[in-house]
Amino acid sequence: MKKIGVALLGVGTVGGGTYQILTKNREYFKKIQNVDVTVENVLEINKNRVKELGIDENIVTDNMAVIASNPNVDIVAEFIGGVEPAKTFILQALKSGKSIVTANKELFSKHWEELEEVAKTYGAGLYFEASCVGGVPVIRTLQDSMQANHIESIKGIINGTTNFILSKMSDDGADYNEVLKLAQKLGYAEANPSADVEGFDSMYKLSILSSLSFHKRIKIDDIYREGITGISIKDIKVGQELGYELKLLAIGKQTEQGIEVRVHPTFIPKNHPLANIKDSFNAVHLKGDAVGDIMLYGRGAGALPTGSAIVSDILYAAKKNVHDYYLFNDNDDVKIVSDFESEYYLRLRVLDKPGVLASVSSVFAKYNVSITAVKQKGQNEDGSVEIIFMTHKTFEKAFNNAVNEIESNKDVIKAEAIIRVEN
Amino acid sequence: MKKIGVALLGVGTVGGGTYQILTKNREYFKKIQNVDVTVENVLEINKNRVKELGIDENIVTDNMAVIASNPNVDIVAEFIGGVEPAKTFILQALKSGKSIVTANKELFSKHWEELEEVAKTYGAGLYFEASCVGGVPVIRTLQDSMQANHIESIKGIINGTTNFILSKMSDDGADYNEVLKLAQKLGYAEANPSADVEGFDSMYKLSILSSLSFHKRIKIDDIYREGITGISIKDIKVGQELGYELKLLAIGKQTEQGIEVRVHPTFIPKNHPLANIKDSFNAVHLKGDAVGDIMLYGRGAGALPTGSAIVSDILYAAKKNVHDYYLFNDNDDVKIVSDFESEYYLRLRVLDKPGVLASVSSVFAKYNVSITAVKQKGQNEDGSVEIIFMTHKTFEKAFNNAVNEIESNKDVIKAEAIIRVEN
Repeated sequence: MKKIGVALLGVGTVGGGTYQILTKNREYFKKIQNVDVTVENVLEINKNRVKELGIDENIVTDNMAVIASNPNVDIVAEFIGGVEPAKTFILQALKSGKSIVTANKELFSKHWEELEEVAKTYGAGLYFEASCVGGVPVIRTLQDSMQANHIESIKGIINGTTNFILSKMSDDGADYNEVLKLAQKLGYAEANPSADVEGFDSMYKLSILSSLSFHKRIKIDDIYREGITGISIKDIKVGQELGYELKLLAIGKQTEQGIEVRVHPTFIPKNHPLANIKDSFNAVHLKGDAVGDIMLYGRGAGALPTGSAIVSDILYAAKKNVHDYYLFNDNDDVKIVSDFESEYYLRLRVLDKPGVLASVSSVFAKYNVSITAVKQKGQNEDGSVEIIFMTHKTFEKAFNNAVNEIESNKDVIKAEAIIRVEN
Repeated sequence: MKKIGVALLGVGTVGGGTYQILTKNREYFKKIQNVDVTVENVLEINKNRVKELGIDENIVTDNMAVIASNPNVDIVAEFIGGVEPAKTFILQALKSGKSIVTANKELFSKHWEELEEVAKTYGAGLYFEASCVGGVPVIRTLQDSMQANHIESIKGIINGTTNFILSKMSDDGADYNEVLKLAQKLGYAEANPSADVEGFDSMYKLSILSSLSFHKRIKIDDIYREGITGISIKDIKVGQELGYELKLLAIGKQTEQGIEVRVHPTFIPKNHPLANIKDSFNAVHLKGDAVGDIMLYGRGAGALPTGSAIVSDILYAAKKNVHDYYLFNDNDDVKIVSDFESEYYLRLRVLDKPGVLASVSSVFAKYNVSITAVKQKGQNEDGSVEIIFMTHKTFEKAFNNAVNEIESNKDVIKAEAIIRVEN
């Protein structure tokens, strides 16, 4: 039976969950997977946590060099998160020929090439299923199950915090700040929630997933990003009346013009499979030229779901004799579409005067923006009215130029909300 | 670059789809997967089909021995279906050390051990992702992504024909026979639909999926099976009023008492992720002790979705240096629960007389069947009324005994429908 020694860099929430899964299931894995996995080292300075988990003190160290030089360690699982010191420690491990298992989406999305180059040089493997969508096997599906396909699109709800907030706003009619406070209270959102609510977390994950989907290195700078902090409950309600749910979607598309990658609040039709993904659940919808539509759904975070993906990677890596690399050799021909096409929802506040709709419509016509629906909402106390416009597919730039010109009209008060629509 | 030669046994719908994916994408697979896959042989007697697909006649044969002895063939993909001659051909290929890729659920569910024993003896691999849920990677997910978990349950809509029929009945209020005819006209159902509508197809797939989930060989004879031919539109409507959708579910559960495996029409709550799976789509909902709930969704059949799974297996097998086997060594301790627990929906036709409900209720009490809801439906022309009962979890035998005793009451006309409920 193959023996695999693992080192855990950090035993906080996910690292601790991983330690528990590995130790509790050692005999199970021997029987079912024919591999004996043992935890040989733990890098941790929090002695209480070590005690709490019942970890043998003799395997605990605060020195990465001890782990890098331990011949019994085959795989290093990293739980530090962020770029440094995680990157330094991972490079140290790779240079000792040890394979890496990690959930570190930020590090991967920023420094994948460097990590891969070192891994390849030293014959070590890089496994990062846990970096995207927790225990939901989206990376394995792209690599091992949809590899016969050209991926046409990937659309994902890949951040649980924002999905919790938007679901609560939709279902309870509560406003953003109120729900954010609840999410913080329940532990779904950090005290400083910006990584989630501003879309950075989704952007890191989309960088990884779209790179794997389109076989090109998609960098975070290539990704258009817009968070949910400006979302008003009013637009969620109007969207619902029109048959849409609002989600923070991460979208990657291979089009004739190139690759589109973007993270933004998006209206999707209520009957779309992604529209029913509620609370902190995540889901990824993939379209392949052979397989058609596939959706994967599950918990995107948490100690055990993420631990499940980490341990899955450990067992998967343990069976590999030769590691796979992703190698984005021909990356010079990556063509990112910045002026992408989308349908739009626009909520415009205007003075309640005759002729306003006509003049707004003529500006849209001038910019080739074709309108599919117009809906006036009741008059406000100040005498202004709101008009909702839904557009056909239009280029982002043309739409924005049209809106700028519309806002310069003296009878138009403000474009109060612009939300993209995916059908 | 690794070179892999493939033989296709049959180029009908799925075999033809596979041929097209392999030939169209040869350069793509060389670039992305670093493997050169060529079709070296085709077993087919239909010359028109061979011509239609543009297959070089020189690689076509009607003799399996030619393929088994062709040293350029590494992998044999079988599209014949059913037990014979598929089994004989597969054994012939395995004995020549060629790995098998197949969608043949019937053969696998009936003869897995024999195939695996021969495969192991000759160092060949068995790949059968396409046998369950077409292009949706449920087998790969169980094997390579949820292997850190103990699987607690698997619940699937794994037959597209019956899901199309039940969805149409639910959405359009049409009755079974009418929708079956439509399904046949659209090519979703066979002229003889019994393999689908009687639940055999789901049973074969559940045998494979539950064996992989619970690491025990679950045979088709272990599976309770009930089809959808007896389903009345009336019960679908009453179920909807109560907040349920009706689905043909394949269910596998690991309980303290043992393993439950069953295929039957089932009411599931409208907010369950499986309740929204419509038309011919399939979905599998898995519960693991670490990862929690996961659902996979997509097309369960069709030339390209199934071809996608077949080609995925070919590319996956091509990279394996050592094949995995499933080995159900300790199968003597498989404990199948036949008297399983479930909640029930019962529609009872009774005479509209005082005291009937009281006497029915007392029989339920006698058998320890606890009722959660009772609903009387309007009086029929013949003076009878219908009463709907919903129960708490109860043992199947106790429930059936209670219903038998209830039916013997002279004021009870008939138990017109009994449908299990999964919450």
